[in-house]
Amino acid sequence: MSEHGIFEGLETPCLLLDADRLERNAAKMRARCDALGVMLRPHLKTAKSLDVARVAAGGVAGPITVSTLAEAEYFAAAGWRDILYSTAIAPAKLARAARIQREHGARLLIVVDELEAARAIGREARSLDARFSLLIEVDCGEHRSGAEPASAELLAIAAAIAADAPYLDLAGVMTHAGHSYAFDDPAAIRELAEVERFAAVASADLLRSHGHPCPVVSVGSTPTALFAAHSTGVTEVRAGIYLFWDLSQLSRRICAEDDMAISVLATVIGHQRRGPSLILDAGALALSKDIGARRFMPEAGYGLVCDASTLAPLGTLAVETVHQEHGSVPVPDESWFARLPIGSLVRILPNHACLTCAAYPFYHVLRAGRPDGQWPRVGGW
Amino acid sequence: MSEHGIFEGLETPCLLLDADRLERNAAKMRARCDALGVMLRPHLKTAKSLDVARVAAGGVAGPITVSTLAEAEYFAAAGWRDILYSTAIAPAKLARAARIQREHGARLLIVVDELEAARAIGREARSLDARFSLLIEVDCGEHRSGAEPASAELLAIAAAIAADAPYLDLAGVMTHAGHSYAFDDPAAIRELAEVERFAAVASADLLRSHGHPCPVVSVGSTPTALFAAHSTGVTEVRAGIYLFWDLSQLSRRICAEDDMAISVLATVIGHQRRGPSLILDAGALALSKDIGARRFMPEAGYGLVCDASTLAPLGTLAVETVHQEHGSVPVPDESWFARLPIGSLVRILPNHACLTCAAYPFYHVLRAGRPDGQWPRVGGW
Repeated sequence: MSEHGIFEGLETPCLLLDADRLERNAAKMRARCDALGVMLRPHLKTAKSLDVARVAAGGVAGPITVSTLAEAEYFAAAGWRDILYSTAIAPAKLARAARIQREHGARLLIVVDELEAARAIGREARSLDARFSLLIEVDCGEHRSGAEPASAELLAIAAAIAADAPYLDLAGVMTHAGHSYAFDDPAAIRELAEVERFAAVASADLLRSHGHPCPVVSVGSTPTALFAAHSTGVTEVRAGIYLFWDLSQLSRRICAEDDMAISVLATVIGHQRRGPSLILDAGALALSKDIGARRFMPEAGYGLVCDASTLAPLGTLAVETVHQEHGSVPVPDESWFARLPIGSLVRILPNHACLTCAAYPFYHVLRAGRPDGQWPRVGGW
Repeated sequence: MSEHGIFEGLETPCLLLDADRLERNAAKMRARCDALGVMLRPHLKTAKSLDVARVAAGGVAGPITVSTLAEAEYFAAAGWRDILYSTAIAPAKLARAARIQREHGARLLIVVDELEAARAIGREARSLDARFSLLIEVDCGEHRSGAEPASAELLAIAAAIAADAPYLDLAGVMTHAGHSYAFDDPAAIRELAEVERFAAVASADLLRSHGHPCPVVSVGSTPTALFAAHSTGVTEVRAGIYLFWDLSQLSRRICAEDDMAISVLATVIGHQRRGPSLILDAGALALSKDIGARRFMPEAGYGLVCDASTLAPLGTLAVETVHQEHGSVPVPDESWFARLPIGSLVRILPNHACLTCAAYPFYHVLRAGRPDGQWPRVGGW
């Protein structure tokens, strides 16, 4: 069952990326955004990889989204010029943002969602003698961050940005329906996509009616991008997890099992008769402790255990318990010990790809199911 | 409240290590093991740092425990010669283990807990023409791994090791009372320490009575090391989290608040009026999604929020929700927004130091509360 031959020389645990699935996922989302008539600005916080970004963008260094300045710097240094930094910025980080723009000729779109922050950014820009383009984030219902859509607060932030010209300019508005992950029902997601769209478009309209430019109207999450009925007034869509997919998305019925492009290769290192359980060399560090898939898929555990060569699930086996370097997989009976002896390889479909991938400095890339080189990732901040 | 001055130049989120607390924690455990009359073999799976290992070992390259071959290689290359690799080994990893021993003149103690694995290791050792010293792991009740203590299975494994001489030799037995973390009661932990000790000593006695050498009798977990009534028959204690401590340990009443040596420095990047909440630039990647402290400290969230300079908890503030790069901290009222404006620094006491530290390539070391250089860490496998 486990094909040591194919994976000869790979040390477990390690991260596998099926490039064929990745390319198919990327092409589908590009086609989807073409059909919606909006620009796709892939979010690379999951992939953190130039090679993946090139696949996502169809081979060109197009517009992208990142979540850390480490990512911004990595992509800018490689020639990507149009980078939306989607985390609200700490004013002390603006010096680095300015350096990234200056040294690499890139433009970072900086997100701001309150008046106090806009003013702090203005002061810092002036003292750095740097220029920043800002997007005002509005809150379309997730209530994590963002100003009230189409509100007086929004206008006040825009006025503060205008007051700090030419150091600041208003590039537009953005919103993120992060609460779309709370649903597993396409109809509910479709409604939420309309709420997300409307929050952004109404905010842009209000700003324009008060004389503020608002070229960018940016929305997105993978679920709303896929299920939106239309995108009138939206200029761009941000989405990221669609490149890889994972059990969290499968459990919400946003993707199919054979869309999932990321897996962790692990070795059976023990058989525990009490239980009984297989012990794998992939634990909390190799898989992460995210359990987001369990809400709609209680059986997901910390990941589903699959055949190493075909990635077909092995019955309903899942990693039920993790220690730092051990994953325990209950099995129905001890016949599994002969089926998966010590040293056997398995692959684990992760609960949440963003967190699992973060533990690894590179991907082992698979083409036609076989290892075909490595792609590096950028980590940290 | 937040002293930008002290932390000038540190980019958030980043990992801080209070070296004064570390030294005190290390000295206490050395004194404790001296009092027990056993050798301390610090477990470096949490720290993954040469500098921390030196503090733990009192300045010498003494015996250590590691959880990955990456750690084994890192320490061996730096001159550490006596390394217990505490994760059961996949046979395919023995070539690397042999190389680490050969190139660096180190001895890796390899753990084995079943007959099939012992035979596979013997075959591999023979084919590599390498020699490995093995510890048989026994299960003192955690039921994660390990053979039955003082059992026929144990004798069978020892016989298999003897049959593969000179490629294999039996160095002794080891056990780990990992289930000691299920208690917050010193009396219960003391009982468990005796169960742990007895499982190891009885196993060693049985092996010796059958003519097998058993020089090493290795037990350990931080709680059982601290609360054991005595260590008769034990030769060494493995423990690791005592170097840093964390909320998981504090919640189990194993350490005091001012023992905790690890914290994450974060910046306030937003104020969410709904809630109300502070938004920090430390989320799931910066803190990990471990929630182990919540069992006995439901208010721990993903970490307690503290004053940046004093590390005193700020009321009962905790990171309640994490996204990849955002942490949300509910506050009692909006007066906290003025107290912690955008750009303020806070420190977060992590839920589980082993997982939080894993996200960072180095520690910012603090002496007398002020940054005093960096110590690198080794990650991956």
